[in-house]
Amino acid sequence: MVKNTQVIFNKIPTNYVPVAGEHMVIHESEFDLDAPLSDGQFMTKQLALSIDSYMRGRMRDPSIPSYVSAFEIGKPLLCGTMSSVVKSSNPLFKEGDLVYSSGGRFEQYSLVDGNEAKDYKIRNESKETGLPPSYSLGILGMPGFTAYVGMMKFGHPKKDETLYVSAAASSVGQLAGQLGKRFGMYVVGSAGSDKKMTYLKEIGFDDAFNYKTDDISTNLDKQCPKGIDVYFDNVGGKTLEAAIAHCNHFSRIVACGMISQYSENPETPHNLMELIKRRVQLTGYIVSDHADMEDEFRKNITQWLLAGEINYKESVADGIEKAPEALIDVLQGKNLGKQIVKVADL
Amino acid sequence: MVKNTQVIFNKIPTNYVPVAGEHMVIHESEFDLDAPLSDGQFMTKQLALSIDSYMRGRMRDPSIPSYVSAFEIGKPLLCGTMSSVVKSSNPLFKEGDLVYSSGGRFEQYSLVDGNEAKDYKIRNESKETGLPPSYSLGILGMPGFTAYVGMMKFGHPKKDETLYVSAAASSVGQLAGQLGKRFGMYVVGSAGSDKKMTYLKEIGFDDAFNYKTDDISTNLDKQCPKGIDVYFDNVGGKTLEAAIAHCNHFSRIVACGMISQYSENPETPHNLMELIKRRVQLTGYIVSDHADMEDEFRKNITQWLLAGEINYKESVADGIEKAPEALIDVLQGKNLGKQIVKVADL
Ligand SMILES: NC(=O)c1ccc[n+]([C@@H]2O[C@H](COP(=O)([O-])OP(=O)(O)OC[C@H]3O[C@@H](n4cnc5c(N)ncnc54)[C@H](OP(=O)(O)O)[C@@H]3O)[C@@H](O)[C@H]2O)c1
Ligand SMILES: NC(=O)c1ccc[n+]([C@@H]2O[C@H](COP(=O)([O-])OP(=O)(O)OC[C@H]3O[C@@H](n4cnc5c(N)ncnc54)[C@H](OP(=O)(O)O)[C@@H]3O)[C@@H](O)[C@H]2O)c1
Repeated sequence: MVKNTQVIFNKIPTNYVPVAGEHMVIHESEFDLDAPLSDGQFMTKQLALSIDSYMRGRMRDPSIPSYVSAFEIGKPLLCGTMSSVVKSSNPLFKEGDLVYSSGGRFEQYSLVDGNEAKDYKIRNESKETGLPPSYSLGILGMPGFTAYVGMMKFGHPKKDETLYVSAAASSVGQLAGQLGKRFGMYVVGSAGSDKKMTYLKEIGFDDAFNYKTDDISTNLDKQCPKGIDVYFDNVGGKTLEAAIAHCNHFSRIVACGMISQYSENPETPHNLMELIKRRVQLTGYIVSDHADMEDEFRKNITQWLLAGEINYKESVADGIEKAPEALIDVLQGKNLGKQIVKVADL
Repeated sequence: MVKNTQVIFNKIPTNYVPVAGEHMVIHESEFDLDAPLSDGQFMTKQLALSIDSYMRGRMRDPSIPSYVSAFEIGKPLLCGTMSSVVKSSNPLFKEGDLVYSSGGRFEQYSLVDGNEAKDYKIRNESKETGLPPSYSLGILGMPGFTAYVGMMKFGHPKKDETLYVSAAASSVGQLAGQLGKRFGMYVVGSAGSDKKMTYLKEIGFDDAFNYKTDDISTNLDKQCPKGIDVYFDNVGGKTLEAAIAHCNHFSRIVACGMISQYSENPETPHNLMELIKRRVQLTGYIVSDHADMEDEFRKNITQWLLAGEINYKESVADGIEKAPEALIDVLQGKNLGKQIVKVADL
């Protein structure tokens, strides 16, 4: 028997930001590493957990429909996990394999049933590349892929055009902006702290502003003097409205996320007529529809990371019991780059 | 000397609907058909005027920028005109030619200067086809072309999909819906009177509702049971919100017009997050950018009209002095199909 700390969903929050110890609680259970496995089962030891803002959307009454299922009260939180297989009677997974799950359980050890195995993907690349396994939760995982699909498929980036990225220091945003730079775009980002602004300039953004202390529209006037050709929207609401008001003719809005819309009394743009007058194309997309681009994505980003042509930052919370605070940090915008919880070393 | 009745822009309206005799006045002037012409000049006799809702947007303070220039106080209203050339010393225009101008003057006769000639296009087709010259203001003109570009370039229509068209009995809407039918779509329209509903069904719409007497969302539930795959938006606001709430995954919104946004205190959609969740692509466009499709458009629509495969209705106001009331009708949605003012017979 080993100790198996779990992060349990305990209660549906009413405010946007949940409370650690009330809505999410730490539970100490035990795990039997010597238990016999039936056919198809395997055991994982979690290495790193991904903390994503959309987890808040899963903390809801399950009768409210959405594109992701609601969390179950009394069960562990679910999100992206990187794990190593510690024991297996599934022919597709060997002991020592590194595996990614988009809906892994927030616990130190998991027993994975045969019918759950399809949600696990082998991600052994880091053994060869030397890049940290946790990268498969960020720049080489779902958030990175989200930035890649958005820019490559829907952004139609062109040299010397202007790209504006909101929530630019987020896991998705930091790559979206850097991809713009690779195409020779002029790239401006907004984020919620001066530390994030500094970071954005360090990784190659041409300019950045703090939307919490500075007026968005005034700053777009100043920082995007030639107007916006691609707006990579992570925020929605008033930020989207200000961006639309700075869009050039034939510009594109990559509608990736609208994180401002999760909060209480969200605001909404009042200038949608401008989408017509300015001939704007706005495309909403969900990354999981674009699996056909995944190999190309991983190959390119790995290469650019190894060549030092792409920068990437993680905020690391150390220990699984820090997961609730890490989620609260993300919902309050305290993370700088991809928020990870480190559970164990490889 | 002949009498030359003009429709003069007299005052900027403050309410959405202008007042005849106050903001637009009828002015009787004279026109010298025997005056000598300098090189490049020609004279036109107007046959029909197009009444378009966007004229209201031109009745503004000229210091407010927009995609179309403001009307000048004391000068005739401008909009689409079909005319015949009555005298010419411009080698490109012969006596007897039928000519279209997108910004023709609302007066019985015009003297066109050489530098204005570029705004006139020869439209002699109706002499061969026998279709009325006024069709060049509607189904074979800018509104028809707007429907064609929207559906063909941005709608990506597919057999058995559902198309919803708002302001469906408008000049643009009636063709957009019929194009959907040609692709084998299930087509639903909304309009502001029971008479318009009847008309929509007569020209092949599968279903229709009156948005003034019936709740939009309830009707979309009923009439689009498989959801919406293409929304051809002429209205914006709450109609757009209801349509988004019925959009299928990977649906397209053709953002053609947002006529509800011209009124006082326009409403705006509050569910833009759904554009992401439902993977919707919304494209704003302006017809004049797509001149490359114009020949194909005119050839196809002429053929379909002559074969009786496309229906088309005009509301005709008889006499140029009826132009102010005709514009008021359009702004109040009283027109059934393309609103025309008949000025003279060919
Ligand atoms: N379409 C898809 O398939 C897909 C997939 C994954 C993610 N996404 C979207 O991509 C976006 C970024 O996700 P991520 O995982 O990269 O984010 P993340 O790393 O978790 O960071 C989110 C950041 O958003 C900012 N933020 C939070 N609330 C905000 C508000 N009300 N207004 C403005 N900014 C706010 C915060 O930074 P500040 O300091 O700047 O406020 C926060 O650090 C999200 O909108 C997410 O929904 C979409
Ligand atoms: N993108 C482009 O390049 C382009 C070019 C031309 C036209 N357009 C747009 O296409 C649309 C149709 O133009 P059109 O010339 O075909 O129109 P139209 O024939 O002049 O008819 C306009 C119709 O819109 C409806 N309407 C008016 N106010 C409304 C409101 N507040 N809410 C809902 N419906 C309202 C009325 O019918 P009801 O009885 O149904 O209310 C009216 O008959 C307009 O939005 C226009 O701006 C776009």
